[in-house]
Amino acid sequence: MEARIVTERIEVATRGEGHVVDLTAEVAKRLAASGLKRGSALVFVPGSTAGVTTIEFEAGLLHDFPALFDRIAPRGAGYRHEEAWHDGNGHSHVRASLLGPSLTVPFDEGRLLLGTWQQVVLVDFDARPRRREVVVQLTGL
Amino acid sequence: MEARIVTERIEVATRGEGHVVDLTAEVAKRLAASGLKRGSALVFVPGSTAGVTTIEFEAGLLHDFPALFDRIAPRGAGYRHEEAWHDGNGHSHVRASLLGPSLTVPFDEGRLLLGTWQQVVLVDFDARPRRREVVVQLTGL
Amino acid sequence: MEARIVTERIEVATRGEGHVVDLTAEVAKRLAASGLKRGSALVFVPGSTAGVTTIEFEAGLLHDFPALFDRIAPRGAGYRHEEAWHDGNGHSHVRASLLGPSLTVPFDEGRLLLGTWQQVVLVDFDARPRRREVVVQLTGL
Repeated sequence: MEARIVTERIEVATRGEGHVVDLTAEVAKRLAASGLKRGSALVFVPGSTAGVTTIEFEAGLLHDFPALFDRIAPRGAGYRHEEAWHDGNGHSHVRASLLGPSLTVPFDEGRLLLGTWQQVVLVDFDARPRRREVVVQLTGL
Repeated sequence: MEARIVTERIEVATRGEGHVVDLTAEVAKRLAASGLKRGSALVFVPGSTAGVTTIEFEAGLLHDFPALFDRIAPRGAGYRHEEAWHDGNGHSHVRASLLGPSLTVPFDEGRLLLGTWQQVVLVDFDARPRRREVVVQLTGL
Repeated sequence: MEARIVTERIEVATRGEGHVVDLTAEVAKRLAASGLKRGSALVFVPGSTAGVTTIEFEAGLLHDFPALFDRIAPRGAGYRHEEAWHDGNGHSHVRASLLGPSLTVPFDEGRLLLGTWQQVVLVDFDARPRRREVVVQLTGL
């Protein structure tokens, strides 16, 4: 059997400033539609002010996780990026680069191998609402 | 020659609270058993209170790396997750989401392309000892 | 059509201490040379004192991003690694492990699916100049 690669997009509207968006159902839907049974899902966000990871998607952590970034990379902390560009989103950039734009989740028997309380999420750190096109690339058999 | 995908599990007992476990020998063993020569090893931890990365696995850093998380995401720092769930592991969740659950290591000529002083590790941030099943998915020729 | 896997190296000379090096053109060059059209580029740095991510590659952020690490993992902050090894790079190790050594970027129609202001970068945290061989492994059709 030959390996196949399917490249899909998920469109997301975000509020920015640490808005955490659950992508799990959309990734699972693309996986089901692909017919692939064994392989991995690469989740990648184009852009330099958002990142991807996994989290237990519940209300408390949707506050706590962005709050960690408020602590370690505060808004307006003298970013040189802002001196040059005056867009007020230096914190957005450094937060996104720290979290990273790519995540890879294995699947087997057509099912993502996530934990029960583990969801795939986009975290949008930009200083304003954004529309994002997250790439989901499924590679497998 | 056709690409193959092999999905394996590594069972690990951890002490939690930043316990760093070296997975390198187990990943290498699965790679050798697979017979694959060129490709990549995806290491993924199901669950929302642990992460994976690489580190020089020596006693000093096994203290220093968790200590970094003590500094940036302290225990009991008013996590809303704990107000709702009373499980005392808000710090575990945000640390795990920051580190991330996936790592991909390339291999060539049947050998992981790690540095000499670079090991693949699980970092368990949970507030109690845990048993983990880490997924190792080998994709290659 | 059968999947192919191409493993390449990019040689980089760095200044260390948070030097951010743009790898995008070199990755794109390897992709063009491979003839692959659809798949992913795994960028992996062997070694335990450097990491990879994406960033908007402009002068302000080349200062701001390393400055984030100065804040959360300061030099000389009593690292036990240094007590044992006396190499003065405890901060380099914990920073690198936090950022992570692997990044995966999807490509389609022979083009990396990066945002316009998003570059693939190596961040070298070592306490001295280094020569690095970054692995770029292209998997696709």
